[in-house]
Amino acid sequence: MTPDRGRLGYTAIAAALRRDIADGVFDTGDALPTEAELCEAFSASRGPVRQAMAVLRAEGLVSSGRGRRTVVINQVPAQSFDGVISFSEWCRASGVEPGQRTRLLAKIWADPAVAAGLDVPVLSPIVFIKRLRLMDGVPTLVERLRYRMEFGRHLLDFDPDSGSIYQRLMDQGVDIHWASRTIDAVVADAEDAELLGVAEGSPLLRVRRRAFTREGVPVEFSDDRYLPNRASFALNSLRGDRCPLTLIPGDGNIAPGDFPAPGAAN
Amino acid sequence: MTPDRGRLGYTAIAAALRRDIADGVFDTGDALPTEAELCEAFSASRGPVRQAMAVLRAEGLVSSGRGRRTVVINQVPAQSFDGVISFSEWCRASGVEPGQRTRLLAKIWADPAVAAGLDVPVLSPIVFIKRLRLMDGVPTLVERLRYRMEFGRHLLDFDPDSGSIYQRLMDQGVDIHWASRTIDAVVADAEDAELLGVAEGSPLLRVRRRAFTREGVPVEFSDDRYLPNRASFALNSLRGDRCPLTLIPGDGNIAPGDFPAPGAAN
Repeated sequence: MTPDRGRLGYTAIAAALRRDIADGVFDTGDALPTEAELCEAFSASRGPVRQAMAVLRAEGLVSSGRGRRTVVINQVPAQSFDGVISFSEWCRASGVEPGQRTRLLAKIWADPAVAAGLDVPVLSPIVFIKRLRLMDGVPTLVERLRYRMEFGRHLLDFDPDSGSIYQRLMDQGVDIHWASRTIDAVVADAEDAELLGVAEGSPLLRVRRRAFTREGVPVEFSDDRYLPNRASFALNSLRGDRCPLTLIPGDGNIAPGDFPAPGAAN
Repeated sequence: MTPDRGRLGYTAIAAALRRDIADGVFDTGDALPTEAELCEAFSASRGPVRQAMAVLRAEGLVSSGRGRRTVVINQVPAQSFDGVISFSEWCRASGVEPGQRTRLLAKIWADPAVAAGLDVPVLSPIVFIKRLRLMDGVPTLVERLRYRMEFGRHLLDFDPDSGSIYQRLMDQGVDIHWASRTIDAVVADAEDAELLGVAEGSPLLRVRRRAFTREGVPVEFSDDRYLPNRASFALNSLRGDRCPLTLIPGDGNIAPGDFPAPGAAN
């Protein structure tokens, strides 16, 4: 650890420690310096150091330190928000080359499920994009993205084969501030199977996402279907901390094309 | 919000606000009181109030407050660690009656994948339990649990149809301190299909878990397969915060019975 990094806020302290953990300065199983040592190294008071430790615990990187030394339990870095929203950003952070083959970019009229997801009246015009996404040239997931027209209009004259839709929206001043995701499993239908190059009926990991502005206006309502041998999810949980990934009971219905009722996933 | 709750630590402040959010005292979209108001209401200094807000943000309950009021974005409570480890505990927290039908409780000898997961030599004796789990009497998931012998021996004379294995282990002084989970999708094989009462080939949400002592000794290595219409995962992510749920690239191999290589998921 580089000593004396100057007077830093908790975000900067967390970032410095996160980097040290990822770089192996602190290995899995290693104890972190004591609170007093961290205060001295960062010229910080106990408040920001404790906040930084709370952040790293919430990310599943270090154990709870109650009464004992805080120990590194994981070196897989937690994911940035950009990586949550954007497959392109996630690929870049993972050292993988993202790719895409757009199948459809269209103005369509919202059916009841999509209307509920985007919080617009049924039959409102929306923008729909369907893309196969690739990792290092290998088919990995099928994206089905729906946007409210006031945000999606920035995509009607955009070439979605040229790269990140998320980047395009940000460049146009669209403020995506938070997202809710629901994760379950489906089997590949004929279209998924053809796009992903697998047999119909293959298991797919499905991630449905609603992305919102700071004011809570839905920007995007999407359905991503991953080949589970190409990408899976991992997380750590710690005794004493609450886990933001929540298992939610289902209603028992199966309708692969349906989205959960508003409120179920957010 | 109940004013003046006395001088509280950040954990108690977070718990009180979490309860108020769950109870609807603060609704989705509502602004929380300012930092100054919270300090006064809890007779606390800024340090613990800021730490409590960092915890609630990490749980996906409130938005980042940078320069603006902190807003409630989610009323689904984050999950306790007990609920992460124990289906019985999760059911109780969700207002559902847990049930189980044990199919097998056996001392077996570890194959290479299980040996790697439990960090024991190949062909070491371990304890294996296979159970169908039910929510309000309805089949929901198939559990396949493997325990290191020094922990699993507490289960050999336990009736796994009587309730929570986790509770039994805790009662015997086994210290489960953290867990890593990997989430993907598989299709039901003949055994899953028969237990869950669905067609072979139905999509299942698979959760593989390794649970560890504080010192990092693996206690349990498990494979849970959920009917996705009975239970799915949900989480919120916020711009500016890192997300502990990480998408990890796969190697492209499909082997539904395999566990990921050690290190891939923790």
